Order: sequence, then structure tokens, then C-alpha cells
Amino acid sequence: MFERIDHVGIVVADLEASIAFYEERFELRGTYREVLDEQSVEVVLLDVGENHVELLRPLHPDTSCGRFLAKRGPGVHHVAYQVKDIVAAIDQLVAQGVEVLDRVPRDGVRNTKIAFIHPRSVGGVLTEIIQQPEGH
Amino acid sequence: MFERIDHVGIVVADLEASIAFYEERFELRGTYREVLDEQSVEVVLLDVGENHVELLRPLHPDTSCGRFLAKRGPGVHHVAYQVKDIVAAIDQLVAQGVEVLDRVPRDGVRNTKIAFIHPRSVGGVLTEIIQQPEGH
Repeated sequence: MFERIDHVGIVVADLEASIAFYEERFELRGTYREVLDEQSVEVVLLDVGENHVELLRPLHPDTSCGRFLAKRGPGVHHVAYQVKDIVAAIDQLVAQGVEVLDRVPRDGVRNTKIAFIHPRSVGGVLTEIIQQPEGH
Repeated sequence: MFERIDHVGIVVADLEASIAFYEERFELRGTYREVLDEQSVEVVLLDVGENHVELLRPLHPDTSCGRFLAKRGPGVHHVAYQVKDIVAAIDQLVAQGVEVLDRVPRDGVRNTKIAFIHPRSVGGVLTEIIQQPEGH
């Protein structure tokens, strides 16, 4: 069902400093930036081979990433696995009793489709599944 | 410097239940199990394409994973990036002022060589670099 780890989502306190760190110290490339208005978050993707680091800057305190930052400080927010067919994957997980938070996929960064799975279904790990756009 | 995300390290409260979940619900394969005596941790690797999920069961409370579990509960403990030459990677990071916890690589699971980077150098993310054995 899962083709690879698509990305690790990391909430940051200082987005520009974090980008500089990952680009300069870890030599990650392909930096891509987008604001997701629906989730009130600014997202920066950096390439690590076929995987990505996803830096997340909450635009408001009262969001998933904003509450995470206030409560736990900067750190790993979620793990995302790439799937070929997100609708089929959601159906299969729901049929097996996994608590999927998005019964219908929603729009993710860079034209992806995403759905989150509740951390209490996955041993405390907020988990995302993600389908890349066709031709990616 | 980094070829891919090698794995996400996840501390679990119930190792057998977690293995069953990742195998049955997420359909991960290639389950590999090893006890690392030096770190007092039982490690289970599962394949996700070329990446891995690494489940960690602390064997004693007074270990990195044990303290993590007591303080934060089960969840993501670290992110590991694969490098070709870990000695060169450590040298480069240290030269740039990154706080590497293992100045000399130590033995990781399945004949790998690993080194950790302090989370305060990486925006709160405990980060590992890992070199696979030759021929892997």
C-alpha cells in the first residue's frame, strides 16, 4: 500500500533559519515554498533523494501546528507515506478500523491529495497518506 | 550528503501490537528484529520502499528511549538520513558547528554505522546519520 516515506513533517519556530540550516548544513536541495490557507500553515519542502523534509510554520496559534508548537516546541509533527490511490487506501484503512481523520482526501502542498490518520490509531504518531499528482 | 530518509525511529509502548499494526494495517514487509545491548533497546525494522520504519522498545527506563517514553509517551523519537561515508559526514558537520553526539560512528542495527546529532542543533529534531554496510 505504501510506496515510500514521502516526507517527515517538522514544525519549526524560525522558518528562515530552518531553511538555511537544512540547505547549508544538510545540503538539501529543491526548496519549494507554499502557503496552505486552509490549514493556516506555510510549508517548505526540501528534497532528500525521493523523500522530503517538510518544514511547517503555523500562521495562527489556533491550528494543529500552532498548538503543537505551543505545547511541545519545534519538532517532528507527522510522518507521511506515499500511496498510489489515496481513495482506495482510505477505504481499506477505514474498513480495517483505522481512525482516518479525512474520509475524503483534501488538497495538500504542490497539488497532492492527502489524508491524516489519528495518532491514537498509530501508537502516538500523527500519520499522513499522500498521493502525488499524475505524472509526478 | 544525504541520499534518502533511511528511517523514522518510533518509540512504542507495546512492540508486538505495533508490529502487528504496521504489518497488517499498513502492509509493511521485511520485518527484521534485533536487540542492541549497548543501547538497551529492541529494534524492529519494517520496509517502506527503500525507507524503513524503526520501532524501538526500551529495555530499561533509564535509556534515551525509556526516558522519551516516560516523558512524552509513544511517538517519533528520531529521523535518520542515509549517508555514503559517515566519517566524512561527521567531519563535515562538526566543521560547520553542528553538535554531533557521536564523534566516532558506533554500531547500529543490521551492521550499520550510525551517529546522532543533538536536537538543539536541528530545531528540536533528534537526527541520526546512518551508513549501510558495503554491498547493501
